Amino acid sequence: MRPGGAPFSDFMQKDLVRAGRLSGVRTRDIETFLSSMDADRHIADADILVDIAHLTMLADQGIVGPEYAGPLMRSLLSLYEKGVPAEAFDSCHEDIHAGIEAFLTREAGQEAGGRLHIGRSRNDEVATCLRVRTRADLLGQMKALTGLRKILLTLAATHTGSVMPGFTHLQHAQPTTLAHHLLAYEQVFSRDYGRLYDAYARLNQSPLGSAAFATTGYPIDREQTAGYLGFDGLVLNTMDAVASRDVFIEVLAADTLLLMSISRFCEELVLWSSLFVRFVDLDEIYCSTSSIMPQKKNPDVAEILRSRAGTLLGRLVSAVTIMKGLPMSYNRDMQDLNPHLWEGICDVRRDIDLLAGMLETASFDLHRMEEEAGCGFSTATELADTLVRRYGIAFRTAHHIVGRAVRNRSLDLTTLDAAAEQFLGKSLSSLGVTEADIRDALSVQTGIAVRNHPGGPAPDAALDAIRQQEHLLTGDLTRLTDLIAHLDKATEKLFTDAKRIAAL
Amino acid sequence: MRPGGAPFSDFMQKDLVRAGRLSGVRTRDIETFLSSMDADRHIADADILVDIAHLTMLADQGIVGPEYAGPLMRSLLSLYEKGVPAEAFDSCHEDIHAGIEAFLTREAGQEAGGRLHIGRSRNDEVATCLRVRTRADLLGQMKALTGLRKILLTLAATHTGSVMPGFTHLQHAQPTTLAHHLLAYEQVFSRDYGRLYDAYARLNQSPLGSAAFATTGYPIDREQTAGYLGFDGLVLNTMDAVASRDVFIEVLAADTLLLMSISRFCEELVLWSSLFVRFVDLDEIYCSTSSIMPQKKNPDVAEILRSRAGTLLGRLVSAVTIMKGLPMSYNRDMQDLNPHLWEGICDVRRDIDLLAGMLETASFDLHRMEEEAGCGFSTATELADTLVRRYGIAFRTAHHIVGRAVRNRSLDLTTLDAAAEQFLGKSLSSLGVTEADIRDALSVQTGIAVRNHPGGPAPDAALDAIRQQEHLLTGDLTRLTDLIAHLDKATEKLFTDAKRIAAL
Amino acid sequence: MRPGGAPFSDFMQKDLVRAGRLSGVRTRDIETFLSSMDADRHIADADILVDIAHLTMLADQGIVGPEYAGPLMRSLLSLYEKGVPAEAFDSCHEDIHAGIEAFLTREAGQEAGGRLHIGRSRNDEVATCLRVRTRADLLGQMKALTGLRKILLTLAATHTGSVMPGFTHLQHAQPTTLAHHLLAYEQVFSRDYGRLYDAYARLNQSPLGSAAFATTGYPIDREQTAGYLGFDGLVLNTMDAVASRDVFIEVLAADTLLLMSISRFCEELVLWSSLFVRFVDLDEIYCSTSSIMPQKKNPDVAEILRSRAGTLLGRLVSAVTIMKGLPMSYNRDMQDLNPHLWEGICDVRRDIDLLAGMLETASFDLHRMEEEAGCGFSTATELADTLVRRYGIAFRTAHHIVGRAVRNRSLDLTTLDAAAEQFLGKSLSSLGVTEADIRDALSVQTGIAVRNHPGGPAPDAALDAIRQQEHLLTGDLTRLTDLIAHLDKATEKLFTDAKRIAAL
Amino acid sequence: MRPGGAPFSDFMQKDLVRAGRLSGVRTRDIETFLSSMDADRHIADADILVDIAHLTMLADQGIVGPEYAGPLMRSLLSLYEKGVPAEAFDSCHEDIHAGIEAFLTREAGQEAGGRLHIGRSRNDEVATCLRVRTRADLLGQMKALTGLRKILLTLAATHTGSVMPGFTHLQHAQPTTLAHHLLAYEQVFSRDYGRLYDAYARLNQSPLGSAAFATTGYPIDREQTAGYLGFDGLVLNTMDAVASRDVFIEVLAADTLLLMSISRFCEELVLWSSLFVRFVDLDEIYCSTSSIMPQKKNPDVAEILRSRAGTLLGRLVSAVTIMKGLPMSYNRDMQDLNPHLWEGICDVRRDIDLLAGMLETASFDLHRMEEEAGCGFSTATELADTLVRRYGIAFRTAHHIVGRAVRNRSLDLTTLDAAAEQFLGKSLSSLGVTEADIRDALSVQTGIAVRNHPGGPAPDAALDAIRQQEHLLTGDLTRLTDLIAHLDKATEKLFTDAKRIAAL
Repeated sequence: MRPGGAPFSDFMQKDLVRAGRLSGVRTRDIETFLSSMDADRHIADADILVDIAHLTMLADQGIVGPEYAGPLMRSLLSLYEKGVPAEAFDSCHEDIHAGIEAFLTREAGQEAGGRLHIGRSRNDEVATCLRVRTRADLLGQMKALTGLRKILLTLAATHTGSVMPGFTHLQHAQPTTLAHHLLAYEQVFSRDYGRLYDAYARLNQSPLGSAAFATTGYPIDREQTAGYLGFDGLVLNTMDAVASRDVFIEVLAADTLLLMSISRFCEELVLWSSLFVRFVDLDEIYCSTSSIMPQKKNPDVAEILRSRAGTLLGRLVSAVTIMKGLPMSYNRDMQDLNPHLWEGICDVRRDIDLLAGMLETASFDLHRMEEEAGCGFSTATELADTLVRRYGIAFRTAHHIVGRAVRNRSLDLTTLDAAAEQFLGKSLSSLGVTEADIRDALSVQTGIAVRNHPGGPAPDAALDAIRQQEHLLTGDLTRLTDLIAHLDKATEKLFTDAKRIAAL
Repeated sequence: MRPGGAPFSDFMQKDLVRAGRLSGVRTRDIETFLSSMDADRHIADADILVDIAHLTMLADQGIVGPEYAGPLMRSLLSLYEKGVPAEAFDSCHEDIHAGIEAFLTREAGQEAGGRLHIGRSRNDEVATCLRVRTRADLLGQMKALTGLRKILLTLAATHTGSVMPGFTHLQHAQPTTLAHHLLAYEQVFSRDYGRLYDAYARLNQSPLGSAAFATTGYPIDREQTAGYLGFDGLVLNTMDAVASRDVFIEVLAADTLLLMSISRFCEELVLWSSLFVRFVDLDEIYCSTSSIMPQKKNPDVAEILRSRAGTLLGRLVSAVTIMKGLPMSYNRDMQDLNPHLWEGICDVRRDIDLLAGMLETASFDLHRMEEEAGCGFSTATELADTLVRRYGIAFRTAHHIVGRAVRNRSLDLTTLDAAAEQFLGKSLSSLGVTEADIRDALSVQTGIAVRNHPGGPAPDAALDAIRQQEHLLTGDLTRLTDLIAHLDKATEKLFTDAKRIAAL
Repeated sequence: MRPGGAPFSDFMQKDLVRAGRLSGVRTRDIETFLSSMDADRHIADADILVDIAHLTMLADQGIVGPEYAGPLMRSLLSLYEKGVPAEAFDSCHEDIHAGIEAFLTREAGQEAGGRLHIGRSRNDEVATCLRVRTRADLLGQMKALTGLRKILLTLAATHTGSVMPGFTHLQHAQPTTLAHHLLAYEQVFSRDYGRLYDAYARLNQSPLGSAAFATTGYPIDREQTAGYLGFDGLVLNTMDAVASRDVFIEVLAADTLLLMSISRFCEELVLWSSLFVRFVDLDEIYCSTSSIMPQKKNPDVAEILRSRAGTLLGRLVSAVTIMKGLPMSYNRDMQDLNPHLWEGICDVRRDIDLLAGMLETASFDLHRMEEEAGCGFSTATELADTLVRRYGIAFRTAHHIVGRAVRNRSLDLTTLDAAAEQFLGKSLSSLGVTEADIRDALSVQTGIAVRNHPGGPAPDAALDAIRQQEHLLTGDLTRLTDLIAHLDKATEKLFTDAKRIAAL
Repeated sequence: MRPGGAPFSDFMQKDLVRAGRLSGVRTRDIETFLSSMDADRHIADADILVDIAHLTMLADQGIVGPEYAGPLMRSLLSLYEKGVPAEAFDSCHEDIHAGIEAFLTREAGQEAGGRLHIGRSRNDEVATCLRVRTRADLLGQMKALTGLRKILLTLAATHTGSVMPGFTHLQHAQPTTLAHHLLAYEQVFSRDYGRLYDAYARLNQSPLGSAAFATTGYPIDREQTAGYLGFDGLVLNTMDAVASRDVFIEVLAADTLLLMSISRFCEELVLWSSLFVRFVDLDEIYCSTSSIMPQKKNPDVAEILRSRAGTLLGRLVSAVTIMKGLPMSYNRDMQDLNPHLWEGICDVRRDIDLLAGMLETASFDLHRMEEEAGCGFSTATELADTLVRRYGIAFRTAHHIVGRAVRNRSLDLTTLDAAAEQFLGKSLSSLGVTEADIRDALSVQTGIAVRNHPGGPAPDAALDAIRQQEHLLTGDLTRLTDLIAHLDKATEKLFTDAKRIAAL
């Protein structure tokens, strides 16, 4: 097995890491079981970036001389350009790190290839790759969320005057507007955005240089690689750096909450597109029909989006359960956590985009909404409140009077008078209440107009809220752009330096 | 049921809210099923505070006149002083809000009592109480975490020179120090602290004034009550304000992660106090014996703390599953979420304190740790690295040579030479390697001293890390003190104004 | 500390088990943390039963002589009669076993009281109590399920002719009957019943006599105590007997599935009682109103029942996570599992009963159901099928023709002809299809009548299904009665023998 | 679009089901989102089998005439032989059912292909496929479990005399034997087996013929297809048949419990292969080394197996959360449940086999086990018991005496005498206790020999237990063989009849 002289198969067909220490020929079953290749596809590109940053530092620190650093860097840059070849993903390698090392060893020779891993371990390498990849996912989700929020704010601006019933317990409760309803979700998603942003700060720290957990005896420079990779600082303690996964689980938890909110919105879209409700007509590209019921137009995208919270929650449970009770530092169980991260995190951006698209193309039936806005005695609260405000009846008593009249299925003066006799000892008429007063109090428009408090359904309040939320959104977008620019700049610097090494 | 004239039992023995609208006599079973009283004990005190703030605002806005506001406020202040009486907790009331309203109605009369609920609903009331109570829990947890971190930093400062084995896969891996190991956890807990702090900002916003979800027709002042209750602002959109619970689930998730980290530490304490390891002797007050095995000293507190992550995770799952797919706005399912919040969140402060106490009183067996530090060829990495650094052998080749020698169960020159012949084509001796070189490379002290990178195990690196983390901790404590001072000041202002109303 | 002479406080105020081995005065906080008293209330009665069985065996085997066994048994029987006194629940005791032992020691003296624990350990004692208690819960759930199933079958028998729309994707799909819909749930609950029954067999095995995990040196008789306690056999291996909790988690899992099914039913009840749908009017005792919206009648019981699956799932997650990765045999983490069992399992019987009661008292609006049965082109499938059956059009083509006509919002002959031209190349009229044919194919009654396959919606099929399910139910009831009779007989034998000992 | 004349791409490149009803060109993103193709790979083979059974019935019932049935069956049989072609898996199809139908339509013509779906829907089709596939997985798991149990029984038979320490709280508790320890797990796995067997009975029922949920107007024969597919009966109610997934979640739950038990065993294997314990040496094919620590031999397979319970639990959570609160009957959310089923269930057989292989090849260090068996005063219980049995000291008093002596770190007569003075008021010597009595009571061999109760550690008890468990295993194997034979026979009959149709 001399440098350079071995055939490809020698390097690519077996596990480079095992050779010295362990004997025994593994069955393919065990290899597959132990290999993390499937999940590692998600970090293959990140791994090459980390390799490039590490090698640049090793060369700058004089740990790897130019005779090895040059060819190795040239192979790495070419790999970065062309993408990781299929053979590096063979499950005969324990993981993508071993697969890439085997490939580089073939390309640049054993002497060079064998030096790439100096001053690090797979423990800090994988921890770094996980952060680089998750960071990109987070940024994608944040971008998608700003898009969704923008759509909601734009829709809300159109619908500050579109009345609809508001619900509690799925019962018609009080009239509100579509703008008010949409702004509720926009506000939810702005909190979701905040959680992702906060998680980013904890995530964007470099574990590189921690090696197995105790750093290394080589004169490495952790700050240099951290800078190259766009990290904002170090995960200082090197045992924590390789042994913890809480920052990723935090992202999973934040995504679970986000999908939980999306599930609520989608439940409403399913309800609203039912024949009973007909508040919304979803664009057909978001719907399916039945294999046997030719009349069906089913809100399938909304249904699957609704289910996604269940998927995320399960991933979160898996991740916490796997980490619980693991002693320091690295344990192989942690490899089995990675698929849960990817399957949990990777598709969230798409989910957000789908919801945004579905809303943007949806057609709201404002007539149906208005029709239902006053149903179910939905303005009875305003009537009770009017009795309190104008006629000085105690709140609870007014509530009982109106409640009893509803039970008797009418809010006309006669029925209310009868109820008032019972709870107040005298009729409303005797207090000067007229049918006209009652009709006015029961009007949907009145009910909305008087609810003109911050965050309330009145059109002016909604316009104010839209302005405030747009201001928040603009701030979020500015900070997001800065984060991305910082990463771009770091990468540019890395490749400038890497090419210098490659030219050696 | 005339104002003032009714006997106590009339108000206290039945559900005030139902009377007007619904008939039918409920069985006690259904009452108990629907009542949230058990969980509401956690928010009873918060509820009175919210009542006081709401009434002060109602009086200031002229919504409730002094003839009612005065007596009502006097009853409220007396209730705050004396605590909520047992009868208000009877499960004939749907919840504590109804129980307190019934009590006040008896004390201050139907006319006054019936006015407290003007301009609000139980929906915004409970949402506000949940935030007031959870905020207090969060602050308690943050305080406890600063205590735990301080203990870890102090212990670490004592043990920068206490060598011990570091582990991966529960196998002796490389030597490190107890300080390095403890600092890993301190760093984990500083991230946990950050998550709680970030959650606090999202939590400390006022939903009050949202009423059922659409605010109210009364001229209330949301900003005033928010200020009285120490909130930093409004949950602007009023539908979101009553319909969302994500901020609480975020706390549950952060606590789950915290307990997950604690479970790992406790797993180590259980391992370390086993007869096999004997690295630590836990104070007997944290241990139990057996009912039949008189020799036993079991690490029970560490075991139960280890299990707590499972409890928290389950609560988190319940909370997300309950909220998933609920349409806007309030649904009664959300009442069933509250017990999970309390049982998840309330005991976490105690858990942190117990871990802190257990560590503070633990006695570490430094002799046993040192004894094990060099076992299991734990310095083999350093030997391989030395071969690379001093003799220019490729890293992977050096790894194979040392690995093969370990497999042959000796790291003496002879065994290494044989391995080198196989993988390098020549002996190490032929490169000038001596037995003394090997002994030095294999020394535990050397292995630690050369790992002097940021966050590494070398004593100087540990001292640096302690300084950095103490700096972080000081900043966290300052900010925490500010948060508490802000709340204290708001409460003081509230009571000054409330007493003014009470004097009317 | 001589027998009989010590004051009550000596025995009751401190932890009897610790005294010899451990020193250190515990804070009340730690005592409370370690004590399982809250959860142990659920097994206090079971514990006395187990004590009686154990003591009877000890006396019969001559392990405890009559001079101690007599007084001890008298104390136990009196305790069984009067219930466990409050002081035994003080959290100064680690658990209820210690609390009861302390009580008995006071009552019957140190010499006698100290002998009750001979030949056992708290490990097998608690494992036995858990099974005795869970067994009772299981039987209660099974009884309640038979009641619920009976109600569903009775309702179904009334409604074999009550047509209603069937849904997929919450869209009107095809007409069916209320009987068919109710029978779906009855069938689900019969599977749930089966799971509980299967779990019972694994649960009803005796761990008693396993002691700490290795049995004991005393000549105990495991079969005798198993028989007294109504167990069907032994949990043979004594390490498994004290270390495993899978049988309880199996019950939790079965209950989670049951509650999952209940959540689906309750979701439908919530939908069906909404103003949009109005298929059902729930009895007011299962509803609540709003604190401010006097018109509201909310389906609160159905909502909370819907949430319960989330609670159970969380408990299941806690239980599995706590047990995962625990080495043999007993670990204190397992104490923390018990609250999850009780809070998961205990209320399920009540949940079933509430659903049963809600259904029994519900009033279905058959007119509304019929009105909706034919809406939304719900019989379009039958029309397409008729085109295939009578006119030999290929299924997929017929599906396309009808689907296109629905898209054009009419299923009259003209629209269908146009669609047929497009997909078939000729009109339906040209094949002899008439308006009358179409009307007949689109009739709701026809659609139901032709679906007369086993388990289908046609009235005859429903009657057949009711007969089959009643037969199953009868068998289940017979077996359930046998299980209960077996337990009763065992208990009778136990008390006969125990009284014999008491008379010594 | 006439039969036979259309180019392949017309059928294969678009979604056959949509064409009539829905317009709009979907983006590839939405297609991929809606398509269940990835998960459907697991049921592709089952789907063809279901198609064959369905077509045979359709032909026998005269629903599809020989001119269509013949060519269609020939295509199906050829598909079964050759496997599903890649193009049928293209995500332009919503699912594999649509993909296969498109393929058949191309092969056998539109007129024939369009008839395969007569009398069924994708709802009952997929429900049937899920059962056929899961059934196979279950049988595989049951087979693997019988293998694992056999290995454990065989190992136990070898080690009835191999003493080792037993643990509680990870503390040395009492001596036991390796046989006793292994038999604990065998007993656990026999319960796991029972759960799978019970689940099989509920699973192996046919939903076919339920169509969308209301059966069909065609004169199908549900019993015939059920028989062909080896089902033991019908899922009678057809709405339940398509709307429920509890039988699959039951399998997930049973698998979660199984993996939970495996995680405990693997935790022990990790502990036992640590340098501290060294009870076991795992075969190197189940281990890995480190990328930088050449001495490492890590128990990776055991670690990953330990993590698997977390994965399964997460899948279970996803599945329950997705189904919770879904109204009848089919909702698209249920498609998103399937990946959780497959990823949860499919690999469990392999996990069992890996554990079995790891145990079979493990080398137990009986010397180390014996060395530790008597450590940590592990026989102190027997000493206390001896004091009770032979010298009539009350149990709790004896426990205190021995406990105090342990605290004073010696169990010699002098120390015991001192403790006895304190708790008993006199020395043990004064009761006639000698040093030799104590030595005998403390002997490991004595401790094990006297524990000769059913299921206990004494060699005879272990041999008895092995015999009993082997008897159970033999019964389980017989029943398992019968299940498989039943399926084989059904399949044979199906193909005989299908070939008859194909020959038409």
